[in-house]
Amino acid sequence: MTFLDKLATAQQTNGSLLCVGLDPEPAKFPGQLKGDASRIYDFCARIVDATAGLVIAFKPQIAYFAAHRAEAQLEQLMEHMRRNAPGVPVILDAKRGDIGSTAEQYAIEAFERYGADAVTLSPFMGFDSVAPYLKHQGKGAFLLCRTSNPGGSDLQGQRLAGIEGQPFLYEHVARLAQGPWNLNGQLGLVVGATYPAEIERVRELAPTVPLLIPGVGAQGGDAVATVRAGWRPDAPIIVNSSRAIIYASSGDDFAEAAQKAARSTRDALEAAKP
Amino acid sequence: MTFLDKLATAQQTNGSLLCVGLDPEPAKFPGQLKGDASRIYDFCARIVDATAGLVIAFKPQIAYFAAHRAEAQLEQLMEHMRRNAPGVPVILDAKRGDIGSTAEQYAIEAFERYGADAVTLSPFMGFDSVAPYLKHQGKGAFLLCRTSNPGGSDLQGQRLAGIEGQPFLYEHVARLAQGPWNLNGQLGLVVGATYPAEIERVRELAPTVPLLIPGVGAQGGDAVATVRAGWRPDAPIIVNSSRAIIYASSGDDFAEAAQKAARSTRDALEAAKP
Repeated sequence: MTFLDKLATAQQTNGSLLCVGLDPEPAKFPGQLKGDASRIYDFCARIVDATAGLVIAFKPQIAYFAAHRAEAQLEQLMEHMRRNAPGVPVILDAKRGDIGSTAEQYAIEAFERYGADAVTLSPFMGFDSVAPYLKHQGKGAFLLCRTSNPGGSDLQGQRLAGIEGQPFLYEHVARLAQGPWNLNGQLGLVVGATYPAEIERVRELAPTVPLLIPGVGAQGGDAVATVRAGWRPDAPIIVNSSRAIIYASSGDDFAEAAQKAARSTRDALEAAKP
Repeated sequence: MTFLDKLATAQQTNGSLLCVGLDPEPAKFPGQLKGDASRIYDFCARIVDATAGLVIAFKPQIAYFAAHRAEAQLEQLMEHMRRNAPGVPVILDAKRGDIGSTAEQYAIEAFERYGADAVTLSPFMGFDSVAPYLKHQGKGAFLLCRTSNPGGSDLQGQRLAGIEGQPFLYEHVARLAQGPWNLNGQLGLVVGATYPAEIERVRELAPTVPLLIPGVGAQGGDAVATVRAGWRPDAPIIVNSSRAIIYASSGDDFAEAAQKAARSTRDALEAAKP
């Protein structure tokens, strides 16, 4: 089953556009887990078990594991998700951006070592920084397109003089991902939730690719506006929420609180479909 | 000692602009090491010991370690370099590109976990993807600017309509790194060796920052043209060669062959100084 098939099935089965982002920070862990980097797996596995029936995808952010020497725990977590939530695709958020044999190594890391269904990538080095991932049959790759951090406009918001209509750089990336770069049909785009008009613009330029949309919840994006801007019956969106779900409670009820937060976010997203 | 101080000292002491890139691929290992991912540390340590007196820096590429579950070996290698080559700065080639608390995690990974002196970064997400690294006192950060892979022009070679003179995107990045983004004075730029005219252009726009220049040797860049284009008495360049050095021999004499290749490349670079 390809990444996109798996995504469609999870969306259908769980009635959800919500992706739970797994950004484990031991300092924020609840109760007895607090500050204990050896419990990253335990914390994340509890969140996964509590929310697996409510999500379209999980998105572990590899930086949080790398900072704590927790690669083995990430492997264990990936295995846990395959076993306990086999219908939910896993997007490894790594934003890799390199070429040639180096990119091949990163693809091996993401797809073979960790067994991810998809990965996030930076397009700055051009198509050769994307191509090595497309050789992995059925695996997805999300290119950074329009991020809604304050500096997101520094490069992405520049207009390109040499292309007809002088599109923004992020619009150019959207077109490339929808068209010439999408060799295996498994490309997607990362578009921040803060400015729904930009999601709408990306959707216009890339009418069918999946959009991974971080920034709903703790980062302030509006769930309803996000769905209206990006979701189409034949074009999936994956709306990520990390902190608002996984740190919904700082007590021992954190998994139940995460479930409750995930359910209400999922329901809000579903209700926003036109 | 800051990264730049360490770089200046190594350049002086070793009379070298050469950086040896540590891209360990077990399939290419010589003799008895061939195919054995558990010998990544052994292979790299031998290269380090053979070339430490000939280089301005070492540059381990983290992807090769990550693909082989070799983070512990990378830690061991970093420790080995600090002990056996304390005067040589280490640039962790990771091309990270993320923001906020995620970027902070990557900075912890690079500077605290691995103890690198500098790291490579992608500027695609703008200044907030650079700022978290600058908080680490005295540590260096090299931004991808102009890469000489075939797809390097896809984004970097676009002219920006909204900026006076319609610079290329890579020229814009060069200006940002020389000026407004260079808060701690430790920023550098990554510029491929294939097109010396572009190195010269970047040096014009960024007259003092260090340039990390991959692509000499196996990737075909011309050492002499590279030095003439980028080196200035008060502006360092770090000319990286990986495969041409570390795989100079596929026999048991690989360390001696690496030393010989490093010496001749170093000498060629030195001789090219005007």
